[in-house]
Order: sequence, then C-alpha cells, then structure tokens
Amino acid sequence: MITPVSNVLREALQEKIDQKTKPPGSLGKLEQVALQAGLIQETLEPKITNPAIIVFAGDHGIAAEGLVNPFPQAVTTQMVYNFLKGGAAINVFCRQQQLALRIVDAGVNHEFAGHPGLRDRKIALGTKNYLHQPAMSLEQLQLALDAGAAEVAALHQEGCNTIGFGEMGIGNTSSAALLMSHFTGIPIDNCAGIGTGTNPQQLAQKKAVLRQVQAKHGAPASPMQALAAFGGFEVAMICGAIQKAAELKMIIVIDGFIVSAALLAAAAMQPAVTGYCVFAHCSNENGHQAMLQQLKVAPLLQLDMRLGEGTGAALAIPLIQNAVAFLNEMASFNSAQVSNRTI
Amino acid sequence: MITPVSNVLREALQEKIDQKTKPPGSLGKLEQVALQAGLIQETLEPKITNPAIIVFAGDHGIAAEGLVNPFPQAVTTQMVYNFLKGGAAINVFCRQQQLALRIVDAGVNHEFAGHPGLRDRKIALGTKNYLHQPAMSLEQLQLALDAGAAEVAALHQEGCNTIGFGEMGIGNTSSAALLMSHFTGIPIDNCAGIGTGTNPQQLAQKKAVLRQVQAKHGAPASPMQALAAFGGFEVAMICGAIQKAAELKMIIVIDGFIVSAALLAAAAMQPAVTGYCVFAHCSNENGHQAMLQQLKVAPLLQLDMRLGEGTGAALAIPLIQNAVAFLNEMASFNSAQVSNRTI
Repeated sequence: MITPVSNVLREALQEKIDQKTKPPGSLGKLEQVALQAGLIQETLEPKITNPAIIVFAGDHGIAAEGLVNPFPQAVTTQMVYNFLKGGAAINVFCRQQQLALRIVDAGVNHEFAGHPGLRDRKIALGTKNYLHQPAMSLEQLQLALDAGAAEVAALHQEGCNTIGFGEMGIGNTSSAALLMSHFTGIPIDNCAGIGTGTNPQQLAQKKAVLRQVQAKHGAPASPMQALAAFGGFEVAMICGAIQKAAELKMIIVIDGFIVSAALLAAAAMQPAVTGYCVFAHCSNENGHQAMLQQLKVAPLLQLDMRLGEGTGAALAIPLIQNAVAFLNEMASFNSAQVSNRTI
Repeated sequence: MITPVSNVLREALQEKIDQKTKPPGSLGKLEQVALQAGLIQETLEPKITNPAIIVFAGDHGIAAEGLVNPFPQAVTTQMVYNFLKGGAAINVFCRQQQLALRIVDAGVNHEFAGHPGLRDRKIALGTKNYLHQPAMSLEQLQLALDAGAAEVAALHQEGCNTIGFGEMGIGNTSSAALLMSHFTGIPIDNCAGIGTGTNPQQLAQKKAVLRQVQAKHGAPASPMQALAAFGGFEVAMICGAIQKAAELKMIIVIDGFIVSAALLAAAAMQPAVTGYCVFAHCSNENGHQAMLQQLKVAPLLQLDMRLGEGTGAALAIPLIQNAVAFLNEMASFNSAQVSNRTI
C-alpha cells in the first residue's frame, strides 16, 4: 500500500529554501523539486542515490497489421538489440548522466537468446489485437504488474532511491491514447498523435481504428479491465513499477506520453502515487500536454522531444540532482553573512 | 573579427542526425543544438571540452540610492565572498555539473584583499549613477570589453570550448532593461521587471526612475555609447567576453536577462555573434521572453528561475553535452540494423 506523501516537514523545508542566499522563489521549479524530494524522503537533507532508468519493451497485436504505425513491428526487437549494444538515445543519455540502465523484455514478439543485459519478464510474444479482443487477460496483467514491481524492488534493494521508466513498443502511442481517453474522458481524436511519425492520412486512419477499438470495448468497468483491454505489457509493467516505487517512497521520474498513461492507470488504482512523481518533460506527442494538465502538473523540460525510451526522464534527473544539491549545499543568508531584503 | 558560422556542413550534419535510430526530429531541441555545435566547430564530431562559467560582478551607481533595488548594494560584495567560499547557487551547480567556475571583480564597490579565487579586473568602485551622467566613460568601457575578452581568451588557452557567463550586481536588471529598451525599441515599462523582488510599488518607482534615465540620455548614437551610458562594468565585460568567445569559435551559453542584454549590445556591434549562442533558459524576469522573441530564439530551459549568476547556463550545459553525445555515440539505422520507416 502507498502511504500519501507526508506534509509534516513542508514548512521547515520551505523555510530552509527561503533562507538560501538568493531572492525568494528565484530557483523556480527547482525549489518545488527540492521541497518534494524532502517531503518524499521525510528529511531536510534529501539525497539522490543510484538513480536508474528501466526500459520495458513489448509488442502490440494492433501493430502487426500496420494500421497505426509507420515503422514495422520488427523495430521493437531491433531496438532491444540496439539497447543491448548501447547504441540508442537512452543508452547515450544514461552514460552521460551516469544512470544505471536496465532493459526488460516485457513481451517482445521475438525469442531472445539468453543475453546477460536483458531481463526476461516476457509475458507473451506481444499482446493480442484489441480491435478484436482485450490486449491481455487479467491474469497476464497481474503478472505484468508484479514483474514491474519486482524490477523496482530489485533496484531499491541495491540502493536506488530515484527511478525513471522508459518504454519501447511499436504501436504503444495507440495503447497510451486509448488509456488516456478512458481515464481522462478526453475524446480519442484529441489523445491520438503522430507517434513515431504518421503522416496526416495515416493519423486519420489511426484515429479511425482507435475509435473502432473503443466501440468494441465500451467503457471498461475498472482500471484493471481498462489496462487489460488497451494496455501493452510494457505499459502494464510500468504501471506496476510506479506503484511499487511509490510504496518504497522513491522519487519517480515520469517520462513522456506512454509513461504518463501508465501513471494514469496507476493513479486510478492508488491515487496517492502522484505525490511521488516528478514530471520530467512535456512530449511533443499530441495529447501529452492535455494529460499533464489533467494531472495538474508542470513538467521540468519542454524540449520538443517525442522519442520515448525514458529519454526525457534521463535528461531531467540532473535537474533533480541540482535541486537536492542546492538544498543541501547552498549557504544561508545567515551562514554567509549576506544581507536579506531591506524591505 | 567574428566569422559568421559556416553552413558548409549543415546538410551532412542533418543527414547524420536523421540516420540515428530514432524517429526523425524526435530529439527536438537537442537536434538543433547538435547541429549548431557541429556548424560552430566545423565538424561532424563536435566535442564539449572543459566547459566553464565566468561570473562577473560589479556595482551600479543607481543602486546606492536604493531607488531600483530591494536588496542593499552591499549584497554585491557579500555575494562575491559567498562565491569565493562556494556557497552560492552557481557554485553548487558548477560542482554538480563539473564546470570550471571563475569569479571576476569587474567593479565591485569594495576593496577585496588579494584572494586567490578572485580575478581582479576592477575598473572602478562601481559605475556612476546614470540618473546624472553616463555609467562609465568610453575609456572605461573599452577597458571592460578588453578585460572580458582576456578572461575568455585565458580559458580558451586552457582548452575550454564551451562557455557560459553569469553576473552579480545589485541594480543590474535596471541596466539590462535600459539596454534592452535601447536595442529593441520596446518601451522601458515593458523591459523593467521585479529583479530580485521589488513589490508593485517599488516596481512603479523603478520604472519611473528608468524613464527619467532615458529622458536624461536620449538615444545614444552608437552601441558603445549606449553601453557606456547604461551599462554596468559586469555587463560590459560580458559583452566583450561574448565577442571574444565567438571570435574563437566557442559555443556560448547565454544565461538570463542580464547576459541577454549584454548579447544585444554585442550583436549590435558584431551581428555574427549570435550564431555561436545557445540560449540556456527563459528567465522569469519580465522582459526576457520579449528579448528572446526579438532575437528569434527558443531557449532550452524554462524553469521559472530568475537568479542570475549564470545558473541557467550551468543547468543547460548538460543538455548541450547530451546533444553532442547523441550525435557522436548513437547508432545509425544502418549500423544497428534497425528498419527505417516503411513509408
């Protein structure tokens, strides 16, 4: 169970922030992050230890038909190999930021020969096509939630207290759009976007297909049923991972459109989860901004990115480290003998 | 003299970026930064070496009267000591980002006993009050421009190819607002902002004072005369530093409101300078956004900060390092055997 973030230290943390040698509020969003980190860790001296990114990869039944995605489904598998060789954007950013990186096979449509760098949590060789049936069974969903949780618990055991999630799955912006529409009530046409790069005609087709999917499934009766109907295995694992991270009082760095959709599902199951989330960036994927507005949050970065893989989270973690560092290391007006405002 | 950034490699760089294993354009602003770094360094493999921040500090005649600033003038001196002891925000961020940090006395109203960490470029014990006379003489301005250039040249000699500038000077948002109004034609009321934290009444007074300053000086006949009339010594040194950095084909990381005002002056003297600039962040100081619009640029960060000291530049440098890293290190579709779009 997730304990809501405690507000006990809020006033003391704000006072500490305001006594730093700077005009009040002048570090903007970093001040909010520093405050949040202190609240989550229940200390005036929060620390970021062993920050990490977990990328979950899975395939989508819908994508096999090429109705919603300009890249072929095989790219999911190819990109997993790319992750394992260190050649993807998330590899570069994690090296650059000195973040641990784990790659998890949540359900890719490929049998990987045992690879030491790949964590095998495969539920199946891709989800079912939700045009015709739920993407996964409730049993598969529970397995996925548990697998995501187990991956987080393992990192936490190793001293990680700050974690971001990424995903790879051709077709998964469709899954995220369906979840977004379900959990926010926003019409699917305003949730679906260009993903990896649909052109206007393809986007119109993607929306038409997703409307068919919604007509097929109606309104699922529970968050679990919605996630089973529309989810990818990677989305479900992230949903489980987020909940476990909040339970363990970790700082959760929320990446872009797909991870935010997983968060919507997690928050529908356990609303207290959002207090543990720092929002890394606003994706250029249509719908993400509306999703963030729905969550009433302002992300740290707006770099016009729409790549996924956890790249936004990886780029935001240094800002979180800087926020915590100023709280711990900056002098106060008093300690530095700097005059505060005269009026 | 500043050579305009060459476009010779633009197409080859764009091709290299587009062949990386990601949807085209999906790294957003980082792609633009990677391209710009390659153009500036005239290579397909740009590198960031020994990145550094120089903070220039100076006092302002106008501030001695307390008409435009809620903090007392003595804070400039106190903050320089804070920099030297490592307790200011810029110290924390430079340590965190592993950036070299230099503190320069451009003209603080205090005689510092020789301190190994402080670089003495003092022009005078603060500028004159521009309510009554130009802030500095043209001779002093030339000394300041040269001093800024010399500081940059010294760092460049030591292998630094990427540099950001910061400033400390109670009252210097007034100087920047006057320069902004002069170089952009935007009325002073829309250039002046709360600075370190004026309340509405103080802000009205600040604007009234700045209108008086404008009435006193009319329209200075040249960029040099404008900078002499309204400048601070720290602003003038940054102006000289920016020009030297562009001459040396360095990547220049432009911080907030005051550094951008120095850039406006530099660009009025040598327009080619802007091609070398990466814009770090949009300050919450009123006027900075309009200034960036005038320059037709979109900054990397919008963190609601308004602290100065080069803090925005320091936080943006990791993004530049990530941009260059993806250009050098990411696999291509071909090298990773990842399928490109089917259509």
